[in-house]
Amino acid sequence: MTGIFTKALAEFASGELLPTPLAMSVGRLSALDWLACGRAGAAEPVSHILHSMAAAEGGAQQAHMFGGGAAPSRMVALVNGTTSHALDYDDTHFAHIGHPSVTVYSAAFAMGQQLDRTLSQVLQAALMGMELSVRVGLWLGRDHYQVGYHQTATAGAFGAGVAAGRLAGFDASQMAQVIGLTATRAAGLKAQFGTMGKPYNAGLAASTGVEVAQLVQAGFEANPDALEGDFGFGATHHGSADYKSALDGLGTVWMFETVSHKFHACCHGLHAALEAARELELAAPEVAELQVRTHPRWMLVCNQMAPYTGLGAKFSYRTVLAMLALGVDTAGLDSYSDETCARSDLQALRKRIHVQADDTLAETESVVTLLRRDGLRLEASHDLQSVVELSQREQSIRSKAASLIGEARAEVAWDMLHKNVPSSAFAEMFGS
Amino acid sequence: MTGIFTKALAEFASGELLPTPLAMSVGRLSALDWLACGRAGAAEPVSHILHSMAAAEGGAQQAHMFGGGAAPSRMVALVNGTTSHALDYDDTHFAHIGHPSVTVYSAAFAMGQQLDRTLSQVLQAALMGMELSVRVGLWLGRDHYQVGYHQTATAGAFGAGVAAGRLAGFDASQMAQVIGLTATRAAGLKAQFGTMGKPYNAGLAASTGVEVAQLVQAGFEANPDALEGDFGFGATHHGSADYKSALDGLGTVWMFETVSHKFHACCHGLHAALEAARELELAAPEVAELQVRTHPRWMLVCNQMAPYTGLGAKFSYRTVLAMLALGVDTAGLDSYSDETCARSDLQALRKRIHVQADDTLAETESVVTLLRRDGLRLEASHDLQSVVELSQREQSIRSKAASLIGEARAEVAWDMLHKNVPSSAFAEMFGS
Repeated sequence: MTGIFTKALAEFASGELLPTPLAMSVGRLSALDWLACGRAGAAEPVSHILHSMAAAEGGAQQAHMFGGGAAPSRMVALVNGTTSHALDYDDTHFAHIGHPSVTVYSAAFAMGQQLDRTLSQVLQAALMGMELSVRVGLWLGRDHYQVGYHQTATAGAFGAGVAAGRLAGFDASQMAQVIGLTATRAAGLKAQFGTMGKPYNAGLAASTGVEVAQLVQAGFEANPDALEGDFGFGATHHGSADYKSALDGLGTVWMFETVSHKFHACCHGLHAALEAARELELAAPEVAELQVRTHPRWMLVCNQMAPYTGLGAKFSYRTVLAMLALGVDTAGLDSYSDETCARSDLQALRKRIHVQADDTLAETESVVTLLRRDGLRLEASHDLQSVVELSQREQSIRSKAASLIGEARAEVAWDMLHKNVPSSAFAEMFGS
Repeated sequence: MTGIFTKALAEFASGELLPTPLAMSVGRLSALDWLACGRAGAAEPVSHILHSMAAAEGGAQQAHMFGGGAAPSRMVALVNGTTSHALDYDDTHFAHIGHPSVTVYSAAFAMGQQLDRTLSQVLQAALMGMELSVRVGLWLGRDHYQVGYHQTATAGAFGAGVAAGRLAGFDASQMAQVIGLTATRAAGLKAQFGTMGKPYNAGLAASTGVEVAQLVQAGFEANPDALEGDFGFGATHHGSADYKSALDGLGTVWMFETVSHKFHACCHGLHAALEAARELELAAPEVAELQVRTHPRWMLVCNQMAPYTGLGAKFSYRTVLAMLALGVDTAGLDSYSDETCARSDLQALRKRIHVQADDTLAETESVVTLLRRDGLRLEASHDLQSVVELSQREQSIRSKAASLIGEARAEVAWDMLHKNVPSSAFAEMFGS
């Protein structure tokens, strides 16, 4: 017997309500974005460590890895989940709270190749999984995140399992098994933020999804009510268990449509301010003073006052806004460096930038007020949740992908995402 | 920077304080017991499912699996941890609260073979790991268990990682990395009790230990304070964090010495009553009435009144005591069957057995009062924590192992455990 929430999720995951055309379009954008982040992330030290473990184990070449080579799909999901989150440049869903693509696409592409599924089947299964991740994330709620769980990894594992199960053709009862078994396996702590453990958490979730789906396919019988039942994942992991809100519109409203992509290679908490400042056409020589207002929650996350390292810069309003005003490319991976922090013009400008908490703003919102040297006062605000035209999102992501993996490859991949080719054809682009 | 508890554990795990001779002797008994449970457990359906996953993945033959065959050591740990706990017949440490051997030996034997270590090195590393599992279990405390976490899997993963790390020759700073990385990976819920998910939890912990040690060896950098620091494993997982009690005597007092072995193939909550009843030389025709007193916590765990399945019998005071009185072997795996439950003499006798909660007793204690047909009243009590002579423990475990895997093999294994042979020699006994 399963509870109301698990039953609804299992029926959705195995059912006939398919993603809207808009959700599918956004899903394609996220797939391109994920490919670009994964290929670019393969150069990171954490990716090399996971790769070396895969090489030492060897085994059946069931799917392809970012950085090249093939391995069993459980391992591929671990490597690709870690690698695609290594730069922390992938998409975010603010209701989730987490990064849906790195966990779910990593699982779906691995399982899709193992089972010889087409690219369209992988995209559709991943969209079902990502929608489920968002719903489970909502159900777990803010307390779960605040106490220390990394929702990308916890809620994400359920989405990864369901995407893998969808590719295996599971019915509702098998999907309930996937959910129940994932409940005993999903893990990941925010205490790993700022270390290699953060991207590893995403890899864990992806790999959990593949493992669980494979076990259920082989006839594994777990407690299908281990997510919401007594002593279940919700009860043990500080879940809110508000299933009514979490299920609202499931199957008709596709929350994944509002996923947010990163166009600056820094903490997502800084992006609304950067977008607002962009509207003001910020230029350093004109800046007398700049004031940023943002949701209080970000003050402890990304308000480092005067960092001197590249990593610190990625968590500093004052630094990234000074970079923007000085014409440093905030989308460039190499822009966030110790050298940038050491620039005297940047340090001088940084002193004229002030950050203030404002609890009337949403978490996705910022207001930037510029006092120009000529006395003019300008203000702009931006909300990351505001609707952006699909064509504009497409242009931005294709351009981001081109800068990360080269225009030629980005365009071939984008083209492929519109055709019903074998998923292995797309995955061959993961390698060098 | 690590907290006091992690620092002490990391120093212990990498240090020079070795297990006492008694701890080593008990460790050898547990190794034989674990081998017997693992080989016998390989016939269970859950073991077949894990085995088929290992076969599909293939890869480097780093270590041996129960049931035969070799695979990468991460996979071997997953298979062997699950398989050796499949019968639920392995050892228990009541302070842990959990089953130390199935997680730690499964990790240590896998890693030991991969790194070409001797049997003595594996035994010693496993004892360090099991001691650490017990200490982490104490630190997590009763709340952690009561809320729904399966301590075998959660505390056990830390012990598995440390045992694997010890075999890799880690220093204190690497051990702190093992502990910190395990904190983001350890998982397992009691909601899986009664399903294949329970033994799988043990496999997960073993596999986590091997994976984490391999990553740290390759240079992985996690947050070494993720067990006890802010937003760490303790804070998120309802840990008591009473490090003073948990560290009491660490390195000089070997808590593992008091591990408890099962000599009846049923729930550990029934064993004290069975031992007490054995002292009364219970025989069905003489029983007018039998009263059992036990700690209240067991009333919800193993007091099924009149089960009709073999699985139900394993959780029923009245059934196992009736079996004992009727001369049915409570150590035999096949004794717990639907047929046994259906016996009319057993059902008649069961009605004369009464179970009562008694909160003056320890969890490991039971009192059995027999009213004989001749009017004589006899009483016996047993505490599983009471000291048993090593020679008596040895005799019981060798006899149990002989009944599970045959006397010849059990004696070869027991002999081998006293010699410094390669660990792969012992592991070759896992197969058919």
